[in-house]
Order: sequence, then C-alpha cells, then structure tokens
Amino acid sequence: MNILYYHPLCAKSRFARVMLGETNIPFHGKIEEFWNLRDNLIKLNPAQELPILVYEQNSIIGILPIIEFLSDLQDKSYFYGASLIEKAETRRLVDWCIGKFYHEVLAHIVSQKLLIFYDNSKYTDSNLLRHAKNNAKFHLKYFNYLIKTRGFLSGDKITVADFGVASLISILDYLNDINWIEYRELKIWYSILKSRPSFKPLLDDVIAGFIPSSQYKELDF
Amino acid sequence: MNILYYHPLCAKSRFARVMLGETNIPFHGKIEEFWNLRDNLIKLNPAQELPILVYEQNSIIGILPIIEFLSDLQDKSYFYGASLIEKAETRRLVDWCIGKFYHEVLAHIVSQKLLIFYDNSKYTDSNLLRHAKNNAKFHLKYFNYLIKTRGFLSGDKITVADFGVASLISILDYLNDINWIEYRELKIWYSILKSRPSFKPLLDDVIAGFIPSSQYKELDF
Repeated sequence: MNILYYHPLCAKSRFARVMLGETNIPFHGKIEEFWNLRDNLIKLNPAQELPILVYEQNSIIGILPIIEFLSDLQDKSYFYGASLIEKAETRRLVDWCIGKFYHEVLAHIVSQKLLIFYDNSKYTDSNLLRHAKNNAKFHLKYFNYLIKTRGFLSGDKITVADFGVASLISILDYLNDINWIEYRELKIWYSILKSRPSFKPLLDDVIAGFIPSSQYKELDF
Repeated sequence: MNILYYHPLCAKSRFARVMLGETNIPFHGKIEEFWNLRDNLIKLNPAQELPILVYEQNSIIGILPIIEFLSDLQDKSYFYGASLIEKAETRRLVDWCIGKFYHEVLAHIVSQKLLIFYDNSKYTDSNLLRHAKNNAKFHLKYFNYLIKTRGFLSGDKITVADFGVASLISILDYLNDINWIEYRELKIWYSILKSRPSFKPLLDDVIAGFIPSSQYKELDF
C-alpha cells in the first residue's frame, strides 16, 4: 500500500493530502510528528521534512516533487494548465504559496501558536506572531486580487495553485486568523475549494488543544 | 529578442543563465539590481525577485518555472532524468538547492558580505555570517557524499540538480569560502561542471569591489 507520512499541522502535508484526493491513487496516511521525526524517516528524507509519499516502494520526497509526480503519473493536465505559459504561471504561484506565503506567514503562525503549546519550555514570540499576521494580510489581499481578476488564482480554471493556497489557508481558518469580511472574492473561492471531496479529510481534522473556528467545517460560511 | 533579467550576485540568476546556456535559446541578458528593482520589473514580478525570463513576450518568473519551462520547451530529458522516480529525486535536490542551501547559506553570505559593501548604512552581522559558513559545511559534505555514492548529485547522469548546486557554489568559490581540500569528490565534480560551455559566462563575471579567488576561473584547480 502507498503511504503518505503527514501531520495535520503541517501546511505542506495538507497540500499533499488534497492533491492525492484529486487523483484516484489509494494511500494510507501515517501521522508523523514533524518536530520529532523517527530515525527511519530521517533516512527517507535527510531534510527532515514532511510530506513524504512512498509510492510502490519508491520515496517521493517533498511537496513539489509529489505534486509534479502525481501530475505526470495520471496525466492530470488541469493540475498545471495546458500550455507551457499557463504551466509557468501556475508554478510561479505554487512557488509563491509554498515558498513565500509559507515562510512569511504559515511557518511562524504554526510555530508560535501551535508548536509552543506542545513544548512548555518555550515562550511565544509575540513580535514574530504579529509580524506574521501582518504579512498574512498582504498575501490574502494579493490572492483576493488575483481571483477577482481571473476567476481562479492562475487563470480561469482551477489548478494546483488553488489547491495549495486553499490547503495553507485552511490552517489560518481553523485558528480563526482570517477576517473573511475583508476578502469577498477569496471567501467565495475558498467555499468552492472547501466543497471538493478532496478537501473533506482536512475539514475532519481535529488538532488536540485547539477547537476549530465556528466556520471551519462549514461549506457555506 | 528573449530577455533574461539577472544579476551576477543573485544565485538563482546564475542557475538560470547556466540552464539557458544548456539550451540553444538565444537571449539577451539585462543586469538588474535585485535590491532595487525598477517599477516595470515589479509589475512583471510582484515577488520582486530575479530571475525573470521574457520569452517571446511571455514572462516566465522565478527559477523553478524557468527550469521546468526550458525542460518542456526543448524536451531536454536529461534535465530531470527519464523516469518519474528519477524526476522526483532530481526535483528533491533542486528544492534542496534553491530552498534549503540557498536560505541557510547563500542568502546570508550574499547579504552579509556583498550587499553590505554597497550599503554603507549597514554593518555585517558576524554571528549570522559565521552561522551561514557553518551551515555551508553541512551542505557541502552532503553534496560530496551524494557525488561519491552516485557519480552525480541525483544519480549516475548529470541533471539540473548538478547545474543548480554548481551555480550556487560558484559564488562561494568566487569569495574563496570553500576549503576544497575537505571535499575531494565535490572538487572533481565541480571541475567537470565548470568545464561546460554553459558555465563560461559565470566564470567571466567580475563583481565590483571583490577580486575573485585565485582558482575561480581555473577549470583544473
């Protein structure tokens, strides 16, 4: 059986779970504490990061290789778009999502709000948290602008860029860190993304110690 | 004419120049100070980063989209390898190179050694610089280990992972920040990469205020 090593708090793992849900590849999910990877997982990925997909005994390591692999494997042309120019725009936004948005927003919020909850020896750096929340506004405005202009993030059709941004946003939504009134188009778009069957497993996530926001599981919110 | 917006100090731009050199796509290079992008370039790339390739009036933005685009455009199967599993391994290492190696080493060394030279108002953070140099040792050892085991970084054939790591390493070599005696296999491998015609433009780079190390331009060093 194919295995996805993931964690509900890991934004990139969420992205991988949605992408697998968009294919019909059977897999078994194994939760792994990414701040404390076991020896055999470090052997799989010396970068000590999730997600890791073991597909027919082969390790596909990291979110980007996993998406490209799934796209090639099942010839999912809608994942990146049809033309080379569309692909380049989708890849730019995937890079924005798991590079820029992840590092400037998600990584800080997860570490400062959630990981610290599990590690009593550390204190929240409230400056860093405030900084990440300010950054979030800039990113959300940009996503909202793109959707308003184009329909979806990278054009008029859904692509992996949409799945990526929605997966990452789901953590912010869980924590009630988005003032949805400010982002009208993003809210409608997120409602569409949330409604896809591939998104269902994320909405069923419960993170110990954190009750999800009231709208988290609602498709119309 | 196709245009590549780049800068000799930008590690990802170096990678793009080598990759373009490996194709036969004609292009005109335009040097852009990435710490001070002009208004029309910010319009091209709101992430305000180099490299940007304008190919037949289309903007291909960011190093990853550029490599994948060039690979698809000319069906350069050696860029990522033949099988889906080989591709995944190459992509893992490209991600390591422009994600991990770049952020943990190159970005700090370039900002602390070079950019500060052009900005009199700032001082070098010697702790950060020392930290980056320590990180460099870990990465170089890992690359050396992979090459010793496999021949090239992602397997027994050259791929974009090799072009990427060599492009980034070229900045460290310029600044004489590699003690080559410690990395026997990496040194031989770098000599092979350096000898490719696509690498020549990088070896001709001169960075104002910084004399290259004595071995920088030597193919056998």
